[in-house]
Amino acid sequence: MHAYRTHNCAQLTKEKVGETVRLSGWIHRKRDHGGVLFVDLRDHYGITQVVADEDSPALPILDALKLESVVTIDGDVKARDAEAVNANLPTGEIEVFARSVTVQSKAEELPLPVAGEQDYPEDIRLKYRFVDLRRETMHRNIMLRSQVISSIRKRMIEQDFNEIQTPILAASSPEGARDYIVPSRLHPGTFYALPQAPQMFKQLLMVAGFDRYFQIAPCFRDEDLRADRSPEFYQLDFEMSFATQEDVFQAIEPVLAGVFEEFANGKSVTPSGEFPRIPYAEAMLKYGSDKPDLRNPLVISDVTDHFQTSGFGLFEKIVGTGGCVRVIPAPNTNEKSRKFFDEMNDWARREGFAGLGYVTRKGGEFGGPIAKNHGPENMAKLYDELGLGENDGLFFAAGKDKDAAKLAGAARTRVGELLELIEEGCFKFCWIVDFPMFEYDEEAKKVDFSHNPFSMPQGEMEALENEDPLEILAWQYDIVCNGYELSSGAIRNHRPDIMYKAFEIAGYDKETVDREFSGMIEAFKLGAPPHGGSAPGIDRIVMLLADEPNIREVIAFPLNQKAQDLMMGAPSQVPARALRDVHIRTVEPPKKEGEGQ
Amino acid sequence: MHAYRTHNCAQLTKEKVGETVRLSGWIHRKRDHGGVLFVDLRDHYGITQVVADEDSPALPILDALKLESVVTIDGDVKARDAEAVNANLPTGEIEVFARSVTVQSKAEELPLPVAGEQDYPEDIRLKYRFVDLRRETMHRNIMLRSQVISSIRKRMIEQDFNEIQTPILAASSPEGARDYIVPSRLHPGTFYALPQAPQMFKQLLMVAGFDRYFQIAPCFRDEDLRADRSPEFYQLDFEMSFATQEDVFQAIEPVLAGVFEEFANGKSVTPSGEFPRIPYAEAMLKYGSDKPDLRNPLVISDVTDHFQTSGFGLFEKIVGTGGCVRVIPAPNTNEKSRKFFDEMNDWARREGFAGLGYVTRKGGEFGGPIAKNHGPENMAKLYDELGLGENDGLFFAAGKDKDAAKLAGAARTRVGELLELIEEGCFKFCWIVDFPMFEYDEEAKKVDFSHNPFSMPQGEMEALENEDPLEILAWQYDIVCNGYELSSGAIRNHRPDIMYKAFEIAGYDKETVDREFSGMIEAFKLGAPPHGGSAPGIDRIVMLLADEPNIREVIAFPLNQKAQDLMMGAPSQVPARALRDVHIRTVEPPKKEGEGQ
Repeated sequence: MHAYRTHNCAQLTKEKVGETVRLSGWIHRKRDHGGVLFVDLRDHYGITQVVADEDSPALPILDALKLESVVTIDGDVKARDAEAVNANLPTGEIEVFARSVTVQSKAEELPLPVAGEQDYPEDIRLKYRFVDLRRETMHRNIMLRSQVISSIRKRMIEQDFNEIQTPILAASSPEGARDYIVPSRLHPGTFYALPQAPQMFKQLLMVAGFDRYFQIAPCFRDEDLRADRSPEFYQLDFEMSFATQEDVFQAIEPVLAGVFEEFANGKSVTPSGEFPRIPYAEAMLKYGSDKPDLRNPLVISDVTDHFQTSGFGLFEKIVGTGGCVRVIPAPNTNEKSRKFFDEMNDWARREGFAGLGYVTRKGGEFGGPIAKNHGPENMAKLYDELGLGENDGLFFAAGKDKDAAKLAGAARTRVGELLELIEEGCFKFCWIVDFPMFEYDEEAKKVDFSHNPFSMPQGEMEALENEDPLEILAWQYDIVCNGYELSSGAIRNHRPDIMYKAFEIAGYDKETVDREFSGMIEAFKLGAPPHGGSAPGIDRIVMLLADEPNIREVIAFPLNQKAQDLMMGAPSQVPARALRDVHIRTVEPPKKEGEGQ
Repeated sequence: MHAYRTHNCAQLTKEKVGETVRLSGWIHRKRDHGGVLFVDLRDHYGITQVVADEDSPALPILDALKLESVVTIDGDVKARDAEAVNANLPTGEIEVFARSVTVQSKAEELPLPVAGEQDYPEDIRLKYRFVDLRRETMHRNIMLRSQVISSIRKRMIEQDFNEIQTPILAASSPEGARDYIVPSRLHPGTFYALPQAPQMFKQLLMVAGFDRYFQIAPCFRDEDLRADRSPEFYQLDFEMSFATQEDVFQAIEPVLAGVFEEFANGKSVTPSGEFPRIPYAEAMLKYGSDKPDLRNPLVISDVTDHFQTSGFGLFEKIVGTGGCVRVIPAPNTNEKSRKFFDEMNDWARREGFAGLGYVTRKGGEFGGPIAKNHGPENMAKLYDELGLGENDGLFFAAGKDKDAAKLAGAARTRVGELLELIEEGCFKFCWIVDFPMFEYDEEAKKVDFSHNPFSMPQGEMEALENEDPLEILAWQYDIVCNGYELSSGAIRNHRPDIMYKAFEIAGYDKETVDREFSGMIEAFKLGAPPHGGSAPGIDRIVMLLADEPNIREVIAFPLNQKAQDLMMGAPSQVPARALRDVHIRTVEPPKKEGEGQ
């Protein structure tokens, strides 16, 4: 017989009744029924009920052990009485009568309980993460993460991607977020940096001729932390050669849809091949956001035309000075009080907007100052055009394009939530496409890149030479799921001539480009294929699937919100010798005496 | 038609003759046959021959392009003439007649050639790694690495292991090699360390109840570099709960044997389930090493008994003072001159040993001073006992146990190589088991741990309390392949009481143990399962399979031997602000003026 177990704690069923078995696991729960002790024995796989009565030498030993002690039980499988059957447990029809017990590990008093999963302060949970991870939800989250990543890998390989590791001891980059830096021992005064993303390396892999690369890539950013940010995070980094935007979509939709379907637990998922593609301009108009939550059925409309002339002078004035008027429907709000509408306006003001106008409608009757001034006939015309009904209210966001879009987007979300319109039980994907290549920088009074200078402009050199820069779109795209941006991506600009031209339009001369981006430019001068890719966030994917808003709930050993590992004690002081080795000294921060090294 | 290709450069065969196709790739080679230009077009997948004659508008464009430029070719598939068929190429029966060409990327003068793979200095290769990686061998090595890792993952998952990522921003550890350290911004004067291995984390995952963990884990050591060492390397880190040594072997042999069989390219592999298990003591005796190369058929024997009394006074004296005499056969060396044997002796002296004795034998006649003094009858008896033949020579390593073993081991390797006895075309695995738990430290005149203090002693507490420490073995094991140690591993000591006792035997009191190893000990006090594992080196596995002695040949973007990334320029100076942010200053190393920050 095996030293520790013949079965795991999820394997024994009615068919095994009468067998002699050996189980090992943690004492999850104990119940003393007067001379009969019931123990829930737990391992990675499940729970089995163990019973010891006064005939069993195991009774006093089990009785004396604290919860979470580890034991090996030798015993016999017995059928439970009908009334004791637990249909929720795979092993719920049996129990194991303990003949003997071997104590593998005696637990002392626990810093936090495992069974029951009571809420506990995060710092205690993280300090004793090895206990916290035994809790059902955490254990399930970490297993989900493991399975999701494994499934992503399998699906990427099915799409002919090859995983290649890129360096973690990498070069510091001037742009982007703050790097974590690593002092060099062999080269005094110099530093490695942990990669914020393997962007350069993956593009160089394309230049090196690896057709389809991917990596479940660790990335590092020394930024201030929030619930959904970790200093160390993972992305599904991928890149393809000789690929159009359409190729990228076709390669990655089956992966994302597939992995979500596999782990959605009954929720519906936008099918592969059917991810809507929403141009950036349309997204900003209809959803007031470039990461629209399509579970929200509300769609914003532009009704500027209706307010060219209007009894409602404020809108007429806004429209007259180049602004716009956008509306967010509030369906079936005939039963809502005035307070509901007024509080939306208050909310908009609290958020820093000028205010959110509204029209109420009850059985066809309009209400509110806008309707009154604009006139019921004009309102009816507007409602007809929008296809709204006799009990639908309407919110108004007016102002300059950008401001109106932002307010309308926020209001759309809030109205959707308050009216409980957000569709439950689904993952809705879309692509946001056709981002503008350039934008007008009002402050600097010049044209600048609007997003990523390294994306290929649509129309390539011809567009740059002949079109209005502000009209040029980029081969750039975001993947969005339920209102979360999983990733930006792009077809890259692999042509030095087009790159110089794009930078020239944004006001940078060739020397600047050569100085700042020499690595990439020089590589592109030695034979580079057209290529593109993206990098969906792994942690975010798992958070969505686990329905967890806090990234630390889907990482086995996360740093806390102050970037500390409370369990292992990192960061920590290191011996003076370790600093001398790498030619650095610590410096006490100003005005904080008593700290530092 | 797709913008870049209808087929890749390995897909077109005779069946496609007559079709109009589009291919994209790099210009690998060009041959001008007087008005007809032949271009080998290369992509990730293969090579296709493209032809352009004077009728084709592609001719002058292709003619003007430098090698490694990237082009898209529109053309017709034609059958090659019988004499032009290349049977070595999947596309060798066809060629593509170019109707037109689009230049995707013009290459400038190359820093190193791709086609032909001429030897080039490593620093140039690494500076232009994106060109170097296009070369056939490097491209194949990196793809092999990708496939090996993918196969390992698949096999580990088949064995019910779950991959879990452990932190890269981790805690500094006092033992082991030098850490790479990362200064903290939020906690002045403190540092993270990059993990030398996720040893603590994987054990804590066992304590957390994850039954079988693995990870293709990046590890970091700031050590001086050699051909087979990289500052950043990967290991197949794994750990199992409720597992005996036998369980570990049964779980991992199918993975290792499977992956080697898959990529051995015709070489034979020790089958799973048949890895020999060689006790440490036996390995030291028979192979003079705890990482024996079993491709070498030579086996060392101890012949000390034969020299208790002998005409060869030197050996008699060594034996008389507690030393031993070991022999390495040199089969069928009757044709070898005296010089062969003398040079072995010279080699041993150069290696720092006192010398390597020998006996020659030709047609049954012994030669050399040992045989002369020991006497032919005694020699014949010794030969009979060893089963040696009438034309077999014999080398003698005499001295104290350890020294004799070391010399005999080195001589076994050298004799095997010189006589070309090392079996080609095979991967021979074995486990080295039963390492001693303790050893006598001659210098400190005390018992100390011989290898890993955290391994479980065989016999556990009972052994520690009742046996001679120097007789106690550990549940510790190495995986060896072709003379390379792929990994150490162990069943861990998960019991604080046994750990205190083991440390006590080695002279450390409880306070010291608690101080130095509190993290682990405290975790073990809250319910720890018996567990064990190992961590075979991924880079070494790929080096063996690719038959590459240099680790940098199996890493896409390695640091050079001075730990520099010549392509991206790491390590580099960083802005003063970046240092202030993390509360450090650089210090110029002493006696090297003009350097530093």
